[in-house]
Amino acid sequence: MITEQDCLALDAADPLAACRSEFALPENVVYLDGNSLGARPKAALERARQVIAAEWGDDLIRSWNTAGWYDLPGRLGALLAPLLGAEADEVVVTDSTSVNLFKALAAALRMQAADPVRAGRRVIITERDNFPSDIYMAEGLLGWLDRGYELRLLDSWSDLPAALAGAAGQQVAAVMLTHVNYRTGRMFDMAATTARIHAAGALAIWDLAHSAGAVDVALNAANADFAVGCTYKYLNGGPGAPAFIWVPRRHHAQFSQPLTGWWTHREPFAMQPGYAPAPGIRRALCGTQPVVSLALVECGLAIFQRVSMAALRRKSLALSDLFLSLLEQHCAAHPLELITPRAHADRGSQVSVTHPHGYAVMQALIARGVIGDYREPRVMRFGFTPLYTGYQDVWRAVMILKDILDRSDYQVDARRSAVT
Amino acid sequence: MITEQDCLALDAADPLAACRSEFALPENVVYLDGNSLGARPKAALERARQVIAAEWGDDLIRSWNTAGWYDLPGRLGALLAPLLGAEADEVVVTDSTSVNLFKALAAALRMQAADPVRAGRRVIITERDNFPSDIYMAEGLLGWLDRGYELRLLDSWSDLPAALAGAAGQQVAAVMLTHVNYRTGRMFDMAATTARIHAAGALAIWDLAHSAGAVDVALNAANADFAVGCTYKYLNGGPGAPAFIWVPRRHHAQFSQPLTGWWTHREPFAMQPGYAPAPGIRRALCGTQPVVSLALVECGLAIFQRVSMAALRRKSLALSDLFLSLLEQHCAAHPLELITPRAHADRGSQVSVTHPHGYAVMQALIARGVIGDYREPRVMRFGFTPLYTGYQDVWRAVMILKDILDRSDYQVDARRSAVT
Repeated sequence: MITEQDCLALDAADPLAACRSEFALPENVVYLDGNSLGARPKAALERARQVIAAEWGDDLIRSWNTAGWYDLPGRLGALLAPLLGAEADEVVVTDSTSVNLFKALAAALRMQAADPVRAGRRVIITERDNFPSDIYMAEGLLGWLDRGYELRLLDSWSDLPAALAGAAGQQVAAVMLTHVNYRTGRMFDMAATTARIHAAGALAIWDLAHSAGAVDVALNAANADFAVGCTYKYLNGGPGAPAFIWVPRRHHAQFSQPLTGWWTHREPFAMQPGYAPAPGIRRALCGTQPVVSLALVECGLAIFQRVSMAALRRKSLALSDLFLSLLEQHCAAHPLELITPRAHADRGSQVSVTHPHGYAVMQALIARGVIGDYREPRVMRFGFTPLYTGYQDVWRAVMILKDILDRSDYQVDARRSAVT
Repeated sequence: MITEQDCLALDAADPLAACRSEFALPENVVYLDGNSLGARPKAALERARQVIAAEWGDDLIRSWNTAGWYDLPGRLGALLAPLLGAEADEVVVTDSTSVNLFKALAAALRMQAADPVRAGRRVIITERDNFPSDIYMAEGLLGWLDRGYELRLLDSWSDLPAALAGAAGQQVAAVMLTHVNYRTGRMFDMAATTARIHAAGALAIWDLAHSAGAVDVALNAANADFAVGCTYKYLNGGPGAPAFIWVPRRHHAQFSQPLTGWWTHREPFAMQPGYAPAPGIRRALCGTQPVVSLALVECGLAIFQRVSMAALRRKSLALSDLFLSLLEQHCAAHPLELITPRAHADRGSQVSVTHPHGYAVMQALIARGVIGDYREPRVMRFGFTPLYTGYQDVWRAVMILKDILDRSDYQVDARRSAVT
């Protein structure tokens, strides 16, 4: 039996425990929703004051140069790159994840169309359980290209090998997967999956929304083709903060996407009517970026510069292992069903369990200060963010969950709604 | 002869003079670059603190609902709508101007393609002197649609009637114009031009980047088809703040664009894999928005709620008229060439003059606290923002310009660079 004392001992021995002091978290809250909106780095308030009062208010238009606003997408990309196993000149922070996915998928299809052997491929594969916006964006792009492209939705992630095998696999232009599933927390083996996709002659596009800052991502080691993701979950960049896109150097020269705004131009200030793309990762940008939100992303990334992803991953797994063990110890009598894989290699940084009244139970948890979130159908999600979550937090969360379940202390008729 | 006393008298009688106190401007600066980056509303700092500390830091994920983050694009659109002559449910603040232009142009082409009579039209017209990013975005979209679309660049805005006449005009699907030209400040007659475009069977897309908050825009009265624009110039929304897109009610049902992210979905939180667009203006959104930057847009818009666009326009023209008169009085001996129309009906809220050493002269002005900006080739731009610019400011600007020119007090070998 694990005791609260054991949890306190784990906290006392935690090499990452000091990171929590970098974050402003409300009192008496156990925040297990950093996979939806990361907590606020304390530095964000002062950074906002600096950007708004000094850079915008005092230095005005000059700040595009003097404060480095124009270079922010690349500068932040360089800070983010090591967390993704990427090179500094392969990542920019810009636009939304959806817009960046559009760029990446378009670029992948154009690369395939330019390949004499693969030009005829017309199938794009993803999971039916992928984050819906990714599916919608692919539908949007393919519908507009109007060249007979087909989006194939796998009923299960485990159907991928069959979908890539044989003659069917030879029709596949690209496979677009979310590395860690937003609902279940299941994680793909990026290297093995990418290799399988490449073996079929297709390109691999990864959505890292639930991976970046949460698990050890190794894009270049996996030989992935494109990746996108968001900065407002585990990276603690702020609500709706601009997203990122990764294009490996080996694809820079061929990278072509339709959103060719002036920030992608080789000479954006020459103000010439003819388009010519910038040589490197800037061609993955588009237009002017929201500077205040963008600048705050740095406050989250700065904290990651002082820790290793390996240490974060170790603690993340220890937290979710502890959560699973305590659930078994204290809540086994209740109809909770785990939908997150137990194997470390298959698990991201969240644990999802279903309950027949999942929505109502989650509302009761939130009312008592344990903030997770809810996803249809019946799924309670608990995200573990090793930078600011401790072992005793996990203990408290399970004790409160146990109390709610033991006493059926939730309102099943609660209005059902949820927001990522 | 106009004297400084005359200018002071105009300031004393100015009904908008009190608005200046809403803005934080540095001492000893005459800021004539609000057409590039609007000044900071004082309220922005406190609003940022509220969003970052209270909404993000304390209320965390709940703020998507409790603080109204999810509804911000529509709420800000409703505040902006009256300044554009639009209805409250026709505008959203979202993404960048470039991305929004992509949506609008795509939607226009799809509407035409769905029309049995106009389906074969393949020409899109714009000006060679349009803001380059607008041209690049059109090139990007058309290149990807790959259906024989052609972007036709007019050498002069006055070539438009001929381009729309006769058999050539019957090939035109859409005309994409910037209402007030970024370089020259020349303004189109939106109603007459839209009528001419419609007479040829084409759709009219307006970029209001240099109009919104600067001139009296009347989108519905002009029967325009689509409009986009930015909030960080005359609207004072903050550096790179999210842009806007306007779709009139009459086009909502047919409005279809490729960037179909989850925020455009009829039921974004049902998390269903099948795409179905929201019924109204939300279908012009895409993905999650940068909340901090977005929220600050409200601080700029709030100031406009207390004044009329008619009063702003009157003062804007009075300021630029004064600037022109003082230039004639004091700088006539110098090789300045006016490229902004003198007629009020043809002029936005800026005055642009060329000088053989325009870049160097502008740098000298900036060094002495008169902040305008420079655009290739040789163009010095002076923007007049009636909310915070006074008549004495104009006097000071011209006196300093005169002094610089009289004494040739500028460095012609200065490094040339510029940022919008």
